[in-house]
Amino acid sequence: MADTHSLEALVQALRKLPGVGVKSASRMAFHLLQHDRPGAMLLSQALQQAATNIRHCSLCHTFTENEVCATCLDPQRDHSKLCVVETPADQAAVERTSAYRGLYFVLMGKLSPLDGIGPNEIGLAKLFERATRGDVQEVILATNFTAEGEATAHVIGEALKARGLRVTRLARGVPAGSELEYVDLGTIAHAFVDRR
Amino acid sequence: MADTHSLEALVQALRKLPGVGVKSASRMAFHLLQHDRPGAMLLSQALQQAATNIRHCSLCHTFTENEVCATCLDPQRDHSKLCVVETPADQAAVERTSAYRGLYFVLMGKLSPLDGIGPNEIGLAKLFERATRGDVQEVILATNFTAEGEATAHVIGEALKARGLRVTRLARGVPAGSELEYVDLGTIAHAFVDRR
Repeated sequence: MADTHSLEALVQALRKLPGVGVKSASRMAFHLLQHDRPGAMLLSQALQQAATNIRHCSLCHTFTENEVCATCLDPQRDHSKLCVVETPADQAAVERTSAYRGLYFVLMGKLSPLDGIGPNEIGLAKLFERATRGDVQEVILATNFTAEGEATAHVIGEALKARGLRVTRLARGVPAGSELEYVDLGTIAHAFVDRR
Repeated sequence: MADTHSLEALVQALRKLPGVGVKSASRMAFHLLQHDRPGAMLLSQALQQAATNIRHCSLCHTFTENEVCATCLDPQRDHSKLCVVETPADQAAVERTSAYRGLYFVLMGKLSPLDGIGPNEIGLAKLFERATRGDVQEVILATNFTAEGEATAHVIGEALKARGLRVTRLARGVPAGSELEYVDLGTIAHAFVDRR
């Protein structure tokens, strides 16, 4: 309908969000217009500001509004350790544990040859340059434990070992709170291999 | 973190969307910033335009960009029938059936005394004024078949009958394609009462 063009444009635009189909998008649009127009304006501004202000840290590649992110600038951090993760979301998950006080390198993706994503697309050259600076002594590979994540860890690990760096990988094993009976075989097998 | 203020503001703003918690909001924010910044800008503009341009039809109360919506202006429509629905989404559902060619009145809500939503809050006075104009001969109550929707239909129905209008309610019965074995008892009982 010509007289609801803005509404249809909004529904189409909401479908840009991951996991949002046409039904959810309609529901969201109707909700905002019916009950929360200030919320719609707030979201509009937040999107615009984030898309304009957020860029990548020149050292670790994560999201920041500055040239270098707060984590990389923090003198309290252990600058001899570098943790390689796939995304800022993964970095946030590691941060929440408070178990790691070193620095990060965020790949912003993973190797996926089937999708045409090779070493150049995820900026491995930049990682190698960052890791081979004098201060990094250990690189911890914390890519996901999926097929692509494992492949990415393998490629990075081999390349960094060839450059003489100490490379470790997050331990695979039985998740906290789980019963062996319900843990998959591959995980138990790995937990046996990596037992300590 | 001070250097990702825009990102945190975006996550908070995304939570204004119905059904989006903090995890989904983070995922959406990361996705837009990492993979689809043009999409984020497009969504920002669409939200702003819709929140600015979309208002309510002065006749039927549905969403429109004009004073009167395209449906109310359509001379092909049967102006003797008025279908009362709760929301523009419900109106869209009825429209998709192509089974109805009359006009609409959109309540933009339902009676819900527990939430403090009475006849004034959903503009029943405006409905009564609209329905008692000379051209409307039948009012079809198509509010939802929930407790609130039924109560709303009852209140409107009684008021309009008192004004001498013909009032009908959508038929309750067994949904198309369903097997009796799996249909709830209340629905089957209603289908018996309303059999034809």
